[in-house]
Amino acid sequence: MNDIRVSADALLRFCRACFEKAGLAGSVAQVTADNLVFANLRGVDSHGVIRLKVYVDRLHAGGFNAAAQARVIAEDAATALLDGGGGMGQAAAVAAMDLAIAKAAQSGAGWVSCRNSNHFGAAAFYALRAIDRGMIGFAATNSGPTMAPTGGCEARLGNNAFAIAIPAHPHPPVVLDMATGAVAWGKIFVAQQKKQKIPLTWALDSQGRPTDDPEAAARGGLIQPMAGYKGYGLSLVLDIFTGVLSGGGFATGVRTLYRELDTPSGIAHTCGALRVDRFIPVEAFQQRMAEMIELLRNCPTVPGAERIYVPGEIEDQTAKHRRSAGIPIHSALRQELAALAVELGIPECPPMDAGEGAH
Amino acid sequence: MNDIRVSADALLRFCRACFEKAGLAGSVAQVTADNLVFANLRGVDSHGVIRLKVYVDRLHAGGFNAAAQARVIAEDAATALLDGGGGMGQAAAVAAMDLAIAKAAQSGAGWVSCRNSNHFGAAAFYALRAIDRGMIGFAATNSGPTMAPTGGCEARLGNNAFAIAIPAHPHPPVVLDMATGAVAWGKIFVAQQKKQKIPLTWALDSQGRPTDDPEAAARGGLIQPMAGYKGYGLSLVLDIFTGVLSGGGFATGVRTLYRELDTPSGIAHTCGALRVDRFIPVEAFQQRMAEMIELLRNCPTVPGAERIYVPGEIEDQTAKHRRSAGIPIHSALRQELAALAVELGIPECPPMDAGEGAH
Repeated sequence: MNDIRVSADALLRFCRACFEKAGLAGSVAQVTADNLVFANLRGVDSHGVIRLKVYVDRLHAGGFNAAAQARVIAEDAATALLDGGGGMGQAAAVAAMDLAIAKAAQSGAGWVSCRNSNHFGAAAFYALRAIDRGMIGFAATNSGPTMAPTGGCEARLGNNAFAIAIPAHPHPPVVLDMATGAVAWGKIFVAQQKKQKIPLTWALDSQGRPTDDPEAAARGGLIQPMAGYKGYGLSLVLDIFTGVLSGGGFATGVRTLYRELDTPSGIAHTCGALRVDRFIPVEAFQQRMAEMIELLRNCPTVPGAERIYVPGEIEDQTAKHRRSAGIPIHSALRQELAALAVELGIPECPPMDAGEGAH
Repeated sequence: MNDIRVSADALLRFCRACFEKAGLAGSVAQVTADNLVFANLRGVDSHGVIRLKVYVDRLHAGGFNAAAQARVIAEDAATALLDGGGGMGQAAAVAAMDLAIAKAAQSGAGWVSCRNSNHFGAAAFYALRAIDRGMIGFAATNSGPTMAPTGGCEARLGNNAFAIAIPAHPHPPVVLDMATGAVAWGKIFVAQQKKQKIPLTWALDSQGRPTDDPEAAARGGLIQPMAGYKGYGLSLVLDIFTGVLSGGGFATGVRTLYRELDTPSGIAHTCGALRVDRFIPVEAFQQRMAEMIELLRNCPTVPGAERIYVPGEIEDQTAKHRRSAGIPIHSALRQELAALAVELGIPECPPMDAGEGAH
């Protein structure tokens, strides 16, 4: 099979159909599909439809509870705790984020944790829900253990991640979406396929030694935290702020996406929203953001750097491009999606027509 | 003059006396002294009484407004905005933190920004005020520009810093207190004195090139963000969350501590508090924190690592030691403090008696 491009709409419909076939209600299927295609649109393909098959597999095996609905366990004026019931991380995190936004609308700030959730995909998806309300959005998740604390050589913490989205109209929102590891496993697997060495700061081998050999990293090794002990500290704080605080899984109590498909992962999220106009008017804030963005863009560049980017800007440009030109699906992924269509008895996701995307 | 050790109490009294002589009211002198000695006790000497002279100089020159009092500009159930009036950063940040704690006591969470402030010293000092209330504490500040955005070669962002403090009784609180730069200028100056090379990830020279020469870094160079573009993103987000949101100074609008002593720095802080028992009972949280700490401590270590530390643990141990053994003051700093005592017409800070600290 060749590489193809598919339209975002076609890919959305395909994902939604897969999820409905796998037992999800329409609204949950929709938001999960939205989240995956959002990542593909923004060029974050590691969090896109590459996850579709394992999501369906977990729905079939029982690791994702298709019937779950997030419910409120506790709340105050600016906080709430949800239980995700072992359902889709996307549905749970949207519920948490939207409740945080509602709390912020009332009280200025909202913080909502959700335990008993699952893999939630791209964190920016949730944080960005705050933008149109004139709020700063925040979303964090823990994940299965793949990093050691500084000085250690066994997995204790996930490559935990968070996103912060900041309104900057008429500029695209500033979006920082980052994990606390030096690198994602995906990049190590790519180096493995290409038989390339990796930087010594990326991974440890199974003995806890920094390695430049992606094979050694993949054979029972670990991801290194970014920036040494600072990354360890950030990952730990995110695990506390999500898993420990919510009463959910944390550290080695969290399962990874690709193992024990029949078992809930115990992942927890925390989402936050902060109402800008409780500090200064939104228009003044956006004017100041525009000044900040100009200051950064006008910074003289080093040789080799074409221009300065603001966090989230490249993703925003990629999304604009892919919305018209389509989302590239490489042949191996295309094959996986086609097999999934057969397995679920639904039509394959069609490639874009030759005429589409030409404008 | 020889290196000496001084007791924390004697150093506190000395700092307080200096600040009162320089025009600060007793309570403001006390909290500022507390903050500096807190840093020395915890072994963070870069934020301790090494700053005493420049603080006094700025008070005399007018860059710190001795008479300022922070006042509330806006508030909601979970948020507030303060104006620090160009006064001591320590007094402004304590006001912000305590108001955030009061908001959290009422609403579950509190976020308070303060503009028109100044250098606030060690961030952990503020975050830790939340601990005894069963809250997670947060404190962030922006600072004078010393880092370029990724791809740039001129200073646009500060080595902005934040601290998060998490209750973990009977263990000491977990405290992550970190700046977003790869390193502090202090470490580069030490390498410069010792004529040692520095890692290529620490600094840029005046042309924006990574350099291993501390001289080249110090001669108009810049600090590199930690972890590349992630550190750039974190520093930017902290500046937005403090300076932009509060209506205060941001980016190149913030002044550094050691220049333009007669001009307010335009620094802004944001402090936050989150009430743990709005999620799960504090006792359950602390039990879970103890489990987390055990899991980390029990992690097998790599060769050369004696044991695993939790963030804030080394600082806590150092504080216990220095509280009995005294705070080391090297000869150059001792000389500076002695000259300050003469200038202000107060008694020098006495060294510990030979008998003191022996227990």
